[in-house]
Amino acid sequence: MAANEEIQLAKRPEGMPTEENFRFVETEVPELEEGQVLVKSIYISVDPYMRGRMSDAKSYVAPYEVDAPISGGVVGQVTESQSDKFQKGDYVLGNLPWARYSAVNAETLQKVDPELGPVSTALGVLGMPGLTAYFGLTDIGEPKSGETVVVSGAAGAVGSTVVQIAKILGARVVGIAGSPKKLDYVKNTLGADEVINYKEEDVAKALEKACPDGVDVYFDNVGGPVSDAVYPLLNAHARIPLCGSISSYNKKEDQGPRIHGYLVKSKAKMQGFIVADYSERFTEGKKQLSEWFKQDKLTFEENVVDGFENVPDAFLGLFKGENLGKQLVKVAEAE
Amino acid sequence: MAANEEIQLAKRPEGMPTEENFRFVETEVPELEEGQVLVKSIYISVDPYMRGRMSDAKSYVAPYEVDAPISGGVVGQVTESQSDKFQKGDYVLGNLPWARYSAVNAETLQKVDPELGPVSTALGVLGMPGLTAYFGLTDIGEPKSGETVVVSGAAGAVGSTVVQIAKILGARVVGIAGSPKKLDYVKNTLGADEVINYKEEDVAKALEKACPDGVDVYFDNVGGPVSDAVYPLLNAHARIPLCGSISSYNKKEDQGPRIHGYLVKSKAKMQGFIVADYSERFTEGKKQLSEWFKQDKLTFEENVVDGFENVPDAFLGLFKGENLGKQLVKVAEAE
Repeated sequence: MAANEEIQLAKRPEGMPTEENFRFVETEVPELEEGQVLVKSIYISVDPYMRGRMSDAKSYVAPYEVDAPISGGVVGQVTESQSDKFQKGDYVLGNLPWARYSAVNAETLQKVDPELGPVSTALGVLGMPGLTAYFGLTDIGEPKSGETVVVSGAAGAVGSTVVQIAKILGARVVGIAGSPKKLDYVKNTLGADEVINYKEEDVAKALEKACPDGVDVYFDNVGGPVSDAVYPLLNAHARIPLCGSISSYNKKEDQGPRIHGYLVKSKAKMQGFIVADYSERFTEGKKQLSEWFKQDKLTFEENVVDGFENVPDAFLGLFKGENLGKQLVKVAEAE
Repeated sequence: MAANEEIQLAKRPEGMPTEENFRFVETEVPELEEGQVLVKSIYISVDPYMRGRMSDAKSYVAPYEVDAPISGGVVGQVTESQSDKFQKGDYVLGNLPWARYSAVNAETLQKVDPELGPVSTALGVLGMPGLTAYFGLTDIGEPKSGETVVVSGAAGAVGSTVVQIAKILGARVVGIAGSPKKLDYVKNTLGADEVINYKEEDVAKALEKACPDGVDVYFDNVGGPVSDAVYPLLNAHARIPLCGSISSYNKKEDQGPRIHGYLVKSKAKMQGFIVADYSERFTEGKKQLSEWFKQDKLTFEENVVDGFENVPDAFLGLFKGENLGKQLVKVAEAE
């Protein structure tokens, strides 16, 4: 069997991470203990939240350790099993190290059903990003038919699903993204009613024009100046689900207009959440998303880079704002 | 019957208002139309939000008109009635002009029950400030026994009630206010566990010390730098009811740290509200507050100035930050 390899956090980044924050280390394929399975990584997910874990600031997930492997969402295949739960050949989803092979306690893995969709979707539209969109929008945003929903990061893995679910629920949708290619995707593939290029347009003016009846739901994937432009347009009792703040992940002291007064005036609700808060309802969410997917109401984009050696580059690319939909790295073929 | 008198807005203030913004005008006691009652003002309420209405900026209440009477919360007594709803001698609460006598459509008045407490409390602990505290804290804040509740503006009409309700509900309470006299009141009369003087202490350090288990509920009466110091201490699923932002009422461009990231990290909920949102539950709220009041669990402070001629001064005094509890002007004796 081929030797193993993992990617460690070499040192914590200051500001924007670079190649120097990562280290490739050759290791042995681990021996299994009772209850474990050997997982060959097939798809490794790279996500913006990982930037937060590279710092040692207090957050909702523990920081990565220096000189230890970085970890995250991985879809893999069981190649050896010392557990009744999985057989050789089964597809699994887990929070695994960035490694070619991992010995994993079977209890920490979820089975991936290839009947629901391509196995990579367990990291995207039928996985955490899809569930984040589903629960954030339906449980906190609660758009009613005819209301206006604004989505920032609308071409991303979460945002693209939010746009489509909001349309399914009958809302008027305005998507914000940062390139003509993304705007085309959000409008013509996902079905948003209006789109705004935050890099080229005066966002405040464009929003005012795109939202003549104000904003009822703002699904905020980014924070920062884009969000600043939305607050003055909030309608009474507006809802703002917050699941990320990619614009501020690399800034230590981020200043902006105080939003307190806007929230008081509009009697708005702003609520941070992480998808794990909804873990008891994951089955419900996956079932609904899979149903919409099979009914062709929900589409998705995957940006797949090939090769384990390209995992750090794919991660760094997230902060250049170039990705359309879910960013994945395919590190091996299924057997 | 004595002649009537009213107080008009003479001109809009620039920055801090002065005596020159007010004008006393002698008028006639009005004749009643069908459905109206004549109300003799007894207690006139002066409130910080009125500063906002003196400008012509857009807000959730319309601006006062220049050369027309200023209006606000008044408790009065019916001296003549052309309505089945009220009899001579009844106490009423309404949004009335600053005048000795007003002819008012009976439908716009609420009856004040003197059995619930002194009639002046209809403008304080059993009125809008008390109900704001009650609904904001219990419906949005939802403190659980043992949780930490931080209250800014803790010596004010709303804040002082929040402190006491949070204690009734079993929370650990940290009150923030701006003078030794206020801190003494918040700690020794209202029963807060810890108090912080935002004018003299490093609020961030003092909060860290006063909240070793973090902050579960932040009842925010002020916004601005005091609030900035609270956000980093929010616990998972913290709740922040927002009912005012007095620190920014006179500032056009108010900048501060972006709070987005804090809300995501702590999965916190921040919700603006105004007490009118709960109008269907006012009877419930008044009953609960009156019960606590009669059980000596709820106390309140009224700062009562005598004389109609002193209404503008009492209003201007609000911005000197010296008022403890509710500021009222007694303009006549009950009959």
